[in-house]
Amino acid sequence: MQFLQQSFAVSFDYKVFFTTAVFSRDNTLIADFFKELGPDISSRKLLFVIDEGVEKAHPDLLESIKDYFAVHSGPQLVDHFIIVKGGEETKNNDTQLNKILEATNKYGIDRHSYLAAIGGGAVLDMAGYAAAIAHRGVKLIRIPTTVLSQNDSGVGVKNSINHFNKKNFLGTFRPPVAVFNDDLFLHTLDDRNWRAGISEAVKVALIKDAPFFLWIQEHAAALNRRDSAAMEKLIFECARLHMEHIAGADPFESGSSRPLDFGHWSAHKMEQLTRYELLHGEAVAIGIALDTIYSFLVDYLPEADMLQVVRLLLDLGFELEHPVLAQTNSLLTGLHEFSEHLGGRLTIMLLEGIGKGIDVHDIDQEKFIQAVHMLKTLTKKEM
Amino acid sequence: MQFLQQSFAVSFDYKVFFTTAVFSRDNTLIADFFKELGPDISSRKLLFVIDEGVEKAHPDLLESIKDYFAVHSGPQLVDHFIIVKGGEETKNNDTQLNKILEATNKYGIDRHSYLAAIGGGAVLDMAGYAAAIAHRGVKLIRIPTTVLSQNDSGVGVKNSINHFNKKNFLGTFRPPVAVFNDDLFLHTLDDRNWRAGISEAVKVALIKDAPFFLWIQEHAAALNRRDSAAMEKLIFECARLHMEHIAGADPFESGSSRPLDFGHWSAHKMEQLTRYELLHGEAVAIGIALDTIYSFLVDYLPEADMLQVVRLLLDLGFELEHPVLAQTNSLLTGLHEFSEHLGGRLTIMLLEGIGKGIDVHDIDQEKFIQAVHMLKTLTKKEM
Repeated sequence: MQFLQQSFAVSFDYKVFFTTAVFSRDNTLIADFFKELGPDISSRKLLFVIDEGVEKAHPDLLESIKDYFAVHSGPQLVDHFIIVKGGEETKNNDTQLNKILEATNKYGIDRHSYLAAIGGGAVLDMAGYAAAIAHRGVKLIRIPTTVLSQNDSGVGVKNSINHFNKKNFLGTFRPPVAVFNDDLFLHTLDDRNWRAGISEAVKVALIKDAPFFLWIQEHAAALNRRDSAAMEKLIFECARLHMEHIAGADPFESGSSRPLDFGHWSAHKMEQLTRYELLHGEAVAIGIALDTIYSFLVDYLPEADMLQVVRLLLDLGFELEHPVLAQTNSLLTGLHEFSEHLGGRLTIMLLEGIGKGIDVHDIDQEKFIQAVHMLKTLTKKEM
Repeated sequence: MQFLQQSFAVSFDYKVFFTTAVFSRDNTLIADFFKELGPDISSRKLLFVIDEGVEKAHPDLLESIKDYFAVHSGPQLVDHFIIVKGGEETKNNDTQLNKILEATNKYGIDRHSYLAAIGGGAVLDMAGYAAAIAHRGVKLIRIPTTVLSQNDSGVGVKNSINHFNKKNFLGTFRPPVAVFNDDLFLHTLDDRNWRAGISEAVKVALIKDAPFFLWIQEHAAALNRRDSAAMEKLIFECARLHMEHIAGADPFESGSSRPLDFGHWSAHKMEQLTRYELLHGEAVAIGIALDTIYSFLVDYLPEADMLQVVRLLLDLGFELEHPVLAQTNSLLTGLHEFSEHLGGRLTIMLLEGIGKGIDVHDIDQEKFIQAVHMLKTLTKKEM
């Protein structure tokens, strides 16, 4: 048998910066990032894609960006901003995607040029997908504007749009070249979006870092009253844990284990069943509660730990009761869809302690329904 | 300044197998490939996408595949074959792409399942792109059926479709999990397709391997009379040189240098100007001749070497005269488009000897037009 063996590795490196007012003239962070790339940068182009909601909440944003690149040297700013719809809607068909692809063609954004996306997780997913497929990949800069995108999706390696009515059916694994987390964008979030992203921090603390869980408990009140310092710390730690996980294990998810999806299998289904009326982070909070109670019901997790988790989610202001929870059969079909999207053997993370996850390959449907009922009881009792 | 540094590497490994009659019962190559993946393979699925032209030329193919997977254990064969149009047409809009995406959805092809594409370079490009974006990537097996795809595009890491009337505008870098080069498919190629792929071997010999160039000279007559042994050797060496280049330098082409595109900038434009009436390999043969003559005209390459190259291309039966060569201005716009698709600084490979390429960053338009005229003269004289 004759064959040729191909073997190579591709390195990916990027920084996630934390800053305030990234486009104010005297903030040289982005200018310095480009300067480090050498003199060739002046021949590159830079196209901005901006979430419509962010533009409305920050009416000076476009002018600030123009002003910034007029003052600082760097790539050539494309003098036209691509404004796209925000929220999950932006991923539901290819209208917004095509808008970006047309702009990359029209303005000659090539593989050495930059697409900078400013927005929430959905816009970053969709714009990142456009950047991944245009010319087999133009350089992507992410500027996430929500808690959820700053601490989770925006710092990772995935992009996608929905297709065939399935979440993230089309997409690629492709890291950005840089991420700029600007806390100024958080100030204009409504309370729901401020809170929603906190659930991903609870999630990653539960599976990986008990001291961080304790820290969140201690700062629940501060987070609730929108304390900036507490939120910045929460985002930093959560982003760090997510990034460490991605680098350490299986960046492009070739295996079946996805610990970062703790609490997510039912969450994805709840989002879909509520037509995305539930925000991703809100659904994840309910999903965490369910999988935590389930972990207790199958004797992995002590009752006291389980109660602490539910208590914290309630203290953070999450609604753990929702009409969608009555559709237990529909929720359980989410198990199958989750498994199909990932492929391979069903692998669900449960808890065997706070800060300690465990992979299982089967969910007992009766016990899951029991968990739904127990959540209802606990929520009533605790509130 | 606060930041988190992300750094990781992703390894890619695959084999390119050389075999005869890959789906005959007693050829265990594919069965062995799957067996090595362990017992889990029986829970995976396998979907075939087949080039319409290949199916017509091999009327027993579908039955052979069914028979093969009935006899050998392995993944679950999807009992429906996706037949797609062949040739560049398959890449010109998303009709064929959508056909494949719909099948991956309908038959539940997940990230651990396999899409096997059988066909020429265009079908492999298009089906590979579908595999790259469905569920952020399902596993791709390539079974190339033309000289060009067996020795060049099919063994590499790229996929794409055309968009905005631009070749390969959409695509990704994503390696297959295996490639099976079956020489049986070559026997049914028409003379044009048999010959066309040889130009990529001449190209890679010219920039990397003088002894291989000599070997091609010595076997030009055998290749012309469709000698199988000569063609197998040519394909193996050409695939080896392409694969070594990909692994050694810059697999996902983050830089500006693309030596494997020697002779290609004008070839891409000639394909487009002739509406793909010229096959890729035929256009590359003319492109090689032009860039070789140009290399002589700018004093990089000795005249004797230049004459050897033109002589060999003619000996191999390539037509180096074509009406499209009259459109020199249109050809020269290809320089700009080539540079835009790659991005960054214009980088064109020329020759400074047989087996020795050199990057230049500028093409003298007058000298290029002179090269076109000289090619005409030489072709007349030599033929």
